[in-house]
Order: sequence, then C-alpha cells, then structure tokens
Amino acid sequence: MAKALHTLCASEAQECILRGDFTVEAYAQALLDRVAARDSEVHAWATLDPIHVLEQARRLDRIPKGQRGPLHGFVIGVKDVINTKDFPTKHNSPLHQDDPTLMDATSVAILRANGALIMGKTRTTEYAVVAVTPGTKNPHDPSRSPGGSSSGSAAAVADYQVPIGLGTQTIGSIMRPSSFNGVYGFKPTWNSISSEGQKVTSPTLDTFGFMTREPRDLRKLSDVFGLKDDDEAPRRGEMIIPGQKFAILRPPMWKNAGPGTVAAMERAGQILRDAGAMVDEITLPSDFDNVLELQTDVLRHEIQVVFHRESTCARDTMSRELVAAAAGIQGGTLRRTFLRSFDALAALRGQMDGIASGYAAIIAPSSVDVAPVTDTWTGDPQFNGMWTGLHTPAINVPGFAGQGDMPVGVTLVSGRYRDEHLLQVAASVGPLFTHLAILNLVA
Amino acid sequence: MAKALHTLCASEAQECILRGDFTVEAYAQALLDRVAARDSEVHAWATLDPIHVLEQARRLDRIPKGQRGPLHGFVIGVKDVINTKDFPTKHNSPLHQDDPTLMDATSVAILRANGALIMGKTRTTEYAVVAVTPGTKNPHDPSRSPGGSSSGSAAAVADYQVPIGLGTQTIGSIMRPSSFNGVYGFKPTWNSISSEGQKVTSPTLDTFGFMTREPRDLRKLSDVFGLKDDDEAPRRGEMIIPGQKFAILRPPMWKNAGPGTVAAMERAGQILRDAGAMVDEITLPSDFDNVLELQTDVLRHEIQVVFHRESTCARDTMSRELVAAAAGIQGGTLRRTFLRSFDALAALRGQMDGIASGYAAIIAPSSVDVAPVTDTWTGDPQFNGMWTGLHTPAINVPGFAGQGDMPVGVTLVSGRYRDEHLLQVAASVGPLFTHLAILNLVA
Repeated sequence: MAKALHTLCASEAQECILRGDFTVEAYAQALLDRVAARDSEVHAWATLDPIHVLEQARRLDRIPKGQRGPLHGFVIGVKDVINTKDFPTKHNSPLHQDDPTLMDATSVAILRANGALIMGKTRTTEYAVVAVTPGTKNPHDPSRSPGGSSSGSAAAVADYQVPIGLGTQTIGSIMRPSSFNGVYGFKPTWNSISSEGQKVTSPTLDTFGFMTREPRDLRKLSDVFGLKDDDEAPRRGEMIIPGQKFAILRPPMWKNAGPGTVAAMERAGQILRDAGAMVDEITLPSDFDNVLELQTDVLRHEIQVVFHRESTCARDTMSRELVAAAAGIQGGTLRRTFLRSFDALAALRGQMDGIASGYAAIIAPSSVDVAPVTDTWTGDPQFNGMWTGLHTPAINVPGFAGQGDMPVGVTLVSGRYRDEHLLQVAASVGPLFTHLAILNLVA
Repeated sequence: MAKALHTLCASEAQECILRGDFTVEAYAQALLDRVAARDSEVHAWATLDPIHVLEQARRLDRIPKGQRGPLHGFVIGVKDVINTKDFPTKHNSPLHQDDPTLMDATSVAILRANGALIMGKTRTTEYAVVAVTPGTKNPHDPSRSPGGSSSGSAAAVADYQVPIGLGTQTIGSIMRPSSFNGVYGFKPTWNSISSEGQKVTSPTLDTFGFMTREPRDLRKLSDVFGLKDDDEAPRRGEMIIPGQKFAILRPPMWKNAGPGTVAAMERAGQILRDAGAMVDEITLPSDFDNVLELQTDVLRHEIQVVFHRESTCARDTMSRELVAAAAGIQGGTLRRTFLRSFDALAALRGQMDGIASGYAAIIAPSSVDVAPVTDTWTGDPQFNGMWTGLHTPAINVPGFAGQGDMPVGVTLVSGRYRDEHLLQVAASVGPLFTHLAILNLVA
C-alpha cells in the first residue's frame, strides 16, 4: 500500500510530483486534511488559510517542468516571529494580533523563489522569548511539553501536518523542541543564513533553522542558501561510518541530565562503535566551564537593547515574563561584565572549532530528558545555549526514547561552516539511531 | 534679531516651543519652507509629505504640557533604509519604489514614542551599500561629494532643512558624510541602540546613529535609548579640559591623509594643548596593522549572506556595483579566512577598550580629506572602518576647514559603552574646534 501523502517527507513528495504521481494541489490538500483532522488536538498553527494554500499550490502546478525550482512543492510552516508577505506575523503578542502583513523575511523570500509553498504560521511563545507554551501540545503525548519557542513548527512536523517547519534559536528553541517531538532540527552556523525579517532577540545569538522528519530535506533546504563548506563534503550519499571518529561530549551541567538523555547518549556511542566507528568520551577544557553563563550574559544584555522598544512603547501588552526578560541585566550588572562575557565567548569559538575538527561530529545532549509533563512550560534549554553562543552548526538527530516511550534526541555538532559535512554525518548516523517512537503515531 | 526658526538646533527649538514662543506646527512649517527653498539644489530627500508633517506637528501641539515626551518637537529625517510606518522605505533600489509602508524600525518607534516628529526619508546610496551618490549635493559646494551612504541625512542637517538626521554605518557611512558636510555624527557603541528594522548589510558591523548640528541634541537623543555608562559620566555641562589627557592617533594608512585632514588633526591637538590638556601622539600596537582588512573580510562575507536574497530573487534590479558587493568573498576566499578575521577582530575589541581607557578621548581622522569634487562618488571610508569593526562609540566633531574652505572633522573615540562620557567630551571640545565653515552658509 502506498504511503499516505501527508506522511511523505518533502523530498519524497517532490519526487512523486515531478514524476506526475500527484499534483502539488493534491499534496497540499492531503496536508490540509491532516491539519483538519489533528490540529484541534495539537494546536500547532497560529494562522492557516486553506484557500490561499491551494491557490499557491495551483500556481506551482502551472509552472512548466523545466522551470521548477529546486524546492518545488516543498511545503513549509513558518514560525510566527518570521515575517511573511501573505500572513500576518503575530509573535504571540497582543500588540501584533491585528498587524498588517509585512515583507517576506530574507529566508522566506529565498525559499519561495526556489519553489517552496508557505502553508501558514506556526505557534511560538511570546516573541520567541518567554518559556510559556503557546497552547501547542506534544503530538506524542498531549500532557507533555511541545518544547519552545519553536513549538508549533516542531509539533506540526512531528504530527505529519507539514514536512518542514522553520524555527529560530537564541538559546535552545530549535534543538529542544526537536528533541521533545522526535524530529530533525538543524541550526546552521550562525548567520550562514540571514535572520533578516525575523524578530530580533539577540543579534549575535539569533539563529535561523529548520525542522524536518528526514535529513535529506535539510540538505535540499540548505543548498538554496548556498551553505558550502570550504572542503569538499562527502558525496551526497552516505558517509562510511567505519573508521570515523566521534566524540561523546558530556558538557558542563551534565549532572542534570535525566535518564532518557543519559541512555540516548550511551546508546548513540554504542551504536557508532558497533558500526565500526571510534568513539572518544570527552569533556571540554576548563575554559568552557562557564560557557553557559557567558551565553546568558550576552543574551540578557542584547535582549534588553531590542526590547527597549516594547518596554517604551507598549509595556502594557507585555507579559510579566517578557517584562522580566526584557529587563535583562539592568539593575546591578555592569556593561563591562557584558563586554567581558561577549569577548570571552568570542574567544572560545575558534577553540571549539579546533576541538571539533578532530571528529566527524561531537555528540551532545539535546535536552535534559524527554519532554516534561506540563501544560505551560517549554522545558529547560541548558544543554543548547553553548552551541548557540559558539555559533557552531548543530543538528538534533531523533531516534531514541525515554520515559513513556517519548522521543529524545542527541545533538551532532561540528565546527563553524562545516554545515555540509554535518548534514552528511546526520544523514548517515540518523538511520542508525532510528527508533520506533516517531513512527508510533497513527499517521 | 532672533534666529530664523530653521537655524535652531532641536534642543533650542524645543525650549522655545515649551516656552510658548512658537508651536511645533510653526517650526515644522519653517523647516518645510527651508526645504522648499533649497532642496531643488541639495536633493537631500527621498520622500517628504508636507501635509503629513504638519498633521504630526499639530498632533504634538495638542499634547498637554505635562504629557510631552523628552523629544517633544524634535524633527528628524530618516535615512531611507530605516523602516517607517508612514513613509515607504525605498532603499534607492528599483525593487522597492512601490513598496507599502512597513512597521517602524525599533529606533524610529522609540523616537516617536518620546515625542519626535518624523519629517520624511532622506536619500541613501543603493541599500546603503554602493559608493555612488543618490544625487544629493554637498550644500557647501554642489560640485563636491555629500559623502555616503547617509548622504541625504548629512546634507539636510548641514543645510538647515532639519536639525537631526538618522544614519547607519557599516564602514564609514555616518562619519564620512558628517565630516564632508560639517555636522556632528554619532555612531554609538555597536548594538547599544537596536538596528532592528533597518536594512541589514552586516549584522556585526551595522550601526545605527545620528547626525546633528549641536552635541547637546545628540545627548538628548541618546538618553531616550538608555545609553548609560557604568561609571558616572561628567555632569551634564562641560568637562573641564585642563588636565585631561587626549591621544592624537595616526591610524594605519595615515600616509593617505590629505592636507585638510592632516591640518585638522594638528590643529585639534594644538587647540587642546592650548586649553591645558595633555596630548599624546600615538600609533597602535602592530596587532592593529591589519584591522581594516579584518573589518573588510567580515563585511564582504556578511554582505554576501544577506544579499543572497536579492541575488536570488531580484538580480535584475541590482546595479553592477551592488552585484559586485553582494558577491562578497565568494570565488576564492575561504570561509575559514572569514572566521579567522571575525575572531581576530573580536579579539582586538577589548584591547582597544584598554588603550582608550587611558584618555578622555582618542582623536582620529574622520575622512581622508574634505569632500572630493565628484558628481558620483561618496568618498573613501578607509579611516572609519576600524572603529565600526571595533564597536567603539565615535563622534565626528566638525569645525575645521580644508581646501575650498570646505568642512572637515575629526573623530573622537572612546572604549565600548563609554557613550555618555564621549558625548560629554564632544560637548566640551566641539566649541573649541568650531570654525566658520559651517556658518558660512546663507542660513
């Protein structure tokens, strides 16, 4: 029996469309049907207009075969802090509920120009800052957190409502929800893809990225943004694992890891050893002991600069949590403390590139554990912030399971601008890590 | 005889308005009259709607006295790469000539919320990137360059058409036009004021700033953005110059300085010595020899990331110069070269803060010389880029004159987040430097 259309990954769907098995319109309709059937439980979408989706689909179907873009028929959900010309961007803030549409973000414009179909806006926490969920439920277990702040993108992808979700990460807003929902999450090297047109939180930390169910979709998405390593990356197919060297990294704060994450890290190491790879167990030099504090100092300062606008112009629309976050490091901490952290974090980046260069990838935890049981909290990003601060590419690879058979992933990391390389590694080790958790959903 | 209204600086005009000497409407009308009389020669404005200006003015006049913001009646021209909700933002690009208005940039929203009146959009070079003037003429001599990319803001302020212009700087786009037009230009510490909502060119270099005819306007503008030093800055009034220590810095490439700039630097040092200050003549440690190359490497890489959008979606709308700029360091230079420069530049920032901490201010050249005679070129920013890359606050102080009695300024620099301090220094030395050049205009 052929797979239901909505369960295909974007690359599979595209192959079928190009072969003439079905149209973009039929595919989009199948996704809309899935949304109609499921989203009253999952609450992944902030704005979705089926008529507009089908119009876009028909427009794509009318493009002659030779003129179709590399992402023809890729259907994408856009986190609702990333501007789109056809949907308002509401930031989960009362201030923006009636906003007009704005110009497409740079990322969205490039995706569209390459043939992608923007399905709608996915739910986010308030301005992608606060740690209160936007009502989205984890499709694996609605009593558990969907993660955040890219809650809707992660849940919609995991629930087969859309094959691709766009996310943003300033601490752990792509990695953590990807781990909780059992999907791939890719945070490319900082500013290798422009974040222009997405809400600014912290200019030196904000990172644009993708969530998918298959690593090959990540690769096709990255290609249209010109993510090219200096060194020729392994051929498009798989990397040969035997003989490769990996590092299992227990980061600062590792003592806080829960049983699901501890088991996933152990299992990942064992799977790689069994496949013939060499696996080192490493910790970082003491220079990295306070890397999370450095990242936090930078964030708290930078967030206060940009949210000076909302604090000045629309304070009554801000939640208590946002007011607290936007207060940043005012009230005691000095700007010279921020500068010291800003410079110290910068100095660690090259050092991390050097460490990573010895390995096919570093394997690190993606979340403290499986998604916590909670109606409100997006979970703890303490294992994610350092990679955001260090500007490295990072990919959550799903496939492990913890308590309640909930998914949990591990993070693959490489040095800056080794994005193609890391995508190849993820494409190779992903299938090895695959666990049934993500397939348990009635798709 | 009372000064003509359009010749007042913003703080003077505000005092008169608050005293009831005239209304914001009358003041705005005087500025509009000046524009009507002069802008067919200067060409400073991209978009200006007198009816809307007067509507805003009347709205400000209706605000009861106790509720007026700290910038009540400050009239501001906005560089046309900074978004405004009431004027389109055309970026001097054919792609954006018919754009709808967008949401106010963060800077503009904060200015408005504090009582400022946005007069219109000032001309910029294409996306504030290319070095071809937007047709703006230097009001001191229309055969000479107005500088760029903030050409219109600098010319409009120098020509008394508006007291305040907003600018952006990625290499030298605030400092250079300020020097050429004989106005104050202030580039605060990088990201101390959010650049959200202005065209991104290079996220780690783009800096938002102001142009004015008086330093006290700079101070009032900065205050609403919360620019506070860690250390208590000198009292609002003037700094006592005798006993202060200054550095006259001959930067890398000093050999390229023209006679106007050489004379301005010498004269600045002499004036300060005569006033009782100690003045060291300094050069930088050899670590800084290639600081401009580092800044250029970073720019060329980052510009290529963000302009991947225009290159992908609207290549036929880009000028040849923009295409070349957006090609960045592709075609040969490696990403690891960029990363090395990115990290090396980061490592110099703290070092520069240390050097600057020994002085009330470092005095450096603002431009190679006075504005060159040219119809097209915005001039050479080679003395500006290092301060942008180093994230320091910098203020062009006008007052000197070179060939053709054209204005030329010097740049005051301090360490990062010593913005209040530097504004105090500028307010104190500015009057000492004042030369008749700026007053020569028939105002």
